[in-house]
Amino acid sequence: MRIFDIIQHKKEGRELSEEEIRFFIEGYTCGDVPDYQASALCMAICLRGMTEKETAILTDAMTKSGDSVDLSEFGDLSLDKHSTGGVGDKTSLIVAPTVASLGGVVAKMSGRGLGHTGGTIDKLESIPGYRTEISPDEFLGISRRVGVCVAGQTGNLAPADKKLYALRDVTATVDSIPLIASSIMSKKLAAGAHSIVLDVKTGSGAFMKTPEASEQLAKAMISVGENCGRRVRALVTNMDVPLGNKIGNSLEVKEAVEVLRDGLRGDLYEICVALASNMICLSHKIDISEAQTRVENAISSGAAFAKMKEWIAAQGGDTRVLDDLSLLPDAPFKHTVKAERSGYIAHMNTEDIGVSASLLGAGRVSKTDVIDLSAGIELLAKTGDFVKAGQPLAILHASKESLFDAAERKLLDALTFSEEKPEKQKLIYATL
Amino acid sequence: MRIFDIIQHKKEGRELSEEEIRFFIEGYTCGDVPDYQASALCMAICLRGMTEKETAILTDAMTKSGDSVDLSEFGDLSLDKHSTGGVGDKTSLIVAPTVASLGGVVAKMSGRGLGHTGGTIDKLESIPGYRTEISPDEFLGISRRVGVCVAGQTGNLAPADKKLYALRDVTATVDSIPLIASSIMSKKLAAGAHSIVLDVKTGSGAFMKTPEASEQLAKAMISVGENCGRRVRALVTNMDVPLGNKIGNSLEVKEAVEVLRDGLRGDLYEICVALASNMICLSHKIDISEAQTRVENAISSGAAFAKMKEWIAAQGGDTRVLDDLSLLPDAPFKHTVKAERSGYIAHMNTEDIGVSASLLGAGRVSKTDVIDLSAGIELLAKTGDFVKAGQPLAILHASKESLFDAAERKLLDALTFSEEKPEKQKLIYATL
Repeated sequence: MRIFDIIQHKKEGRELSEEEIRFFIEGYTCGDVPDYQASALCMAICLRGMTEKETAILTDAMTKSGDSVDLSEFGDLSLDKHSTGGVGDKTSLIVAPTVASLGGVVAKMSGRGLGHTGGTIDKLESIPGYRTEISPDEFLGISRRVGVCVAGQTGNLAPADKKLYALRDVTATVDSIPLIASSIMSKKLAAGAHSIVLDVKTGSGAFMKTPEASEQLAKAMISVGENCGRRVRALVTNMDVPLGNKIGNSLEVKEAVEVLRDGLRGDLYEICVALASNMICLSHKIDISEAQTRVENAISSGAAFAKMKEWIAAQGGDTRVLDDLSLLPDAPFKHTVKAERSGYIAHMNTEDIGVSASLLGAGRVSKTDVIDLSAGIELLAKTGDFVKAGQPLAILHASKESLFDAAERKLLDALTFSEEKPEKQKLIYATL
Repeated sequence: MRIFDIIQHKKEGRELSEEEIRFFIEGYTCGDVPDYQASALCMAICLRGMTEKETAILTDAMTKSGDSVDLSEFGDLSLDKHSTGGVGDKTSLIVAPTVASLGGVVAKMSGRGLGHTGGTIDKLESIPGYRTEISPDEFLGISRRVGVCVAGQTGNLAPADKKLYALRDVTATVDSIPLIASSIMSKKLAAGAHSIVLDVKTGSGAFMKTPEASEQLAKAMISVGENCGRRVRALVTNMDVPLGNKIGNSLEVKEAVEVLRDGLRGDLYEICVALASNMICLSHKIDISEAQTRVENAISSGAAFAKMKEWIAAQGGDTRVLDDLSLLPDAPFKHTVKAERSGYIAHMNTEDIGVSASLLGAGRVSKTDVIDLSAGIELLAKTGDFVKAGQPLAILHASKESLFDAAERKLLDALTFSEEKPEKQKLIYATL
């Protein structure tokens, strides 16, 4: 078998055989297939596509390229969720303890933020003492004892995906449904959970800009997961506006606590309930309305918040900050952004708002950047709100005053105003 | 400007700007653009295509990536021809002296054979003493004095094409009309001739398998050449059967002499007359019928053969071999291939016949292989001929008897027989 022929076949639009796909992934992982052949093949896949079968085999080959986490001891109760990335998306902080308080087991590996999107691991590190690097044994021990453990990636999960993603990132071959689906799902499958709920974001702050494209990606990921014997659901949710009102690491922990402890309701709460309900549906094999009732009760009763404290404590975090949010990292400088004109906020370019938070220090432009856990944005108005000229729109948090100008400009430029009240957008486009 | 965006634009099917194309070619030639990005872009070009304008700019950028030969002193009289490669194609050996005997100047750089196709430089080296490596000054001197000089490539012509072709060759991105057209034409333009006649082969022994694809390639090359101020014509000719009856280096020199000296007529003669007539049309600005009369006279009068001897002598070749063909390299072993059944030869897989000649030592599989100048095949029957079982079909020439078995099998397997006389194929499909 020659990689040349595999490239040629995909270029001609043919379905690759299982042997061809495995030959490519094994050869690329070990270095036998050079980058210049892999990138030509990725481009051919971008333009010619892949069948469901090819995507499933590709995912399986990448999953098997490295280690896997064995969560079989938890059986059907092991749950994972994955978000395709957004701005202000702190749902894992809320959903994980909620479903754990209902008997699910969330033994989860999470990532760090890059570009305009945040990462759960960064957010958790804003809690003093919280350890994200823990041994495999401790990871399973905490999961057994508490029902929730969220750590950084340990072991060598899906190294083929890691290598291939880095190549795709510089060869304009990222935006292909089969390649995205196999990249996400290979990591999720290697991470071991039996049931997975996917939060596929859509809109200006998401990788997928339309609900149709998001739905296509969701379907591809469900197909891949089910082909590999996992139970998978997907929600297509709105990321055309930041989720919740706080963006930035310690700010997002604060908002998560406000939902679990203080009864904060709104878009963030609704998405979390939907995600958690679908997870409980899968693990407990109950219908969605019963699952939703249990989830809402877990949050309103304080059970989910109690589980959050138990979890944070188990990973070494100082739970006093959860009782007194003022103990969380707090930026020394604040700056209020005021509306330059009156009108309804018709649209927020959500990616640019994520970039504005990055400019304040909340995010990374390159993987080695150090982030400022206290930096970020508190939004005081969002899409659909009417504001008067001069009215505060947001409070920027930063460790240096010099960062405010560029971030304020980016934030203001991300806003579109109109005289008319804009139509209300859906929060959840589809549940698949 | 970033190469990433250029790849992205082509992936989206957009027309690249002049700046983008030049940025790519300049960056790739100097090593700033790595292979893995160039191969992704080539694949996107294969699948998305290029406009005439993009192809012209790409060609120009590759032409200007290295040296150019200055043939301006010959004005409109400087002529070149290019064949896209075939089996038994020794037309340059006949056409070059013929048009030179009529006042044209063929100062030509030729290549070596690779794969199933032969190369003019290898063929000429079967003439004892013939020097293919000559200095630029001598190249121009011989061209001035004799009107024809055929040398190996000197200088650094179109290095961008050389580098890009090597990459395309291993990434399954060769078969793209804009990439093929720009590759061929960048070398032709750098080689300096004012007028160019292209022989675009079609059929089982050619790169392009159908007359339609060949015509498309011909049109793309004409457009590129004319965009760069050259006069270009193209013939689409049959390569579904070997051209002439001899395949192999010294064997092909022999057949060329038989056309010019001994009055051998048939498919090879007809193609040579067509190519030479079109060249004379361009250089002398006369109509095709007058050009054809002059060409036929040049050959039948012996003027073309006299010019061939003058040319070979000027490049150091021993012209005694042209008077006595038995002095040419002659293989010590010969083997007659006999028909296994009776019937009409309905088709010859011409690429496989080229491979059979390679197996005898006449060609190269990789660039560093040493070829046997005396090896090859004399065909005694071709497509359309009726043969009886046991009748000789071909004589194989080789330096080792052990080579005959595999070559004979390859040759016999390349033949299809039928009871019915097959329809006669066209020799020239189109003149553009």
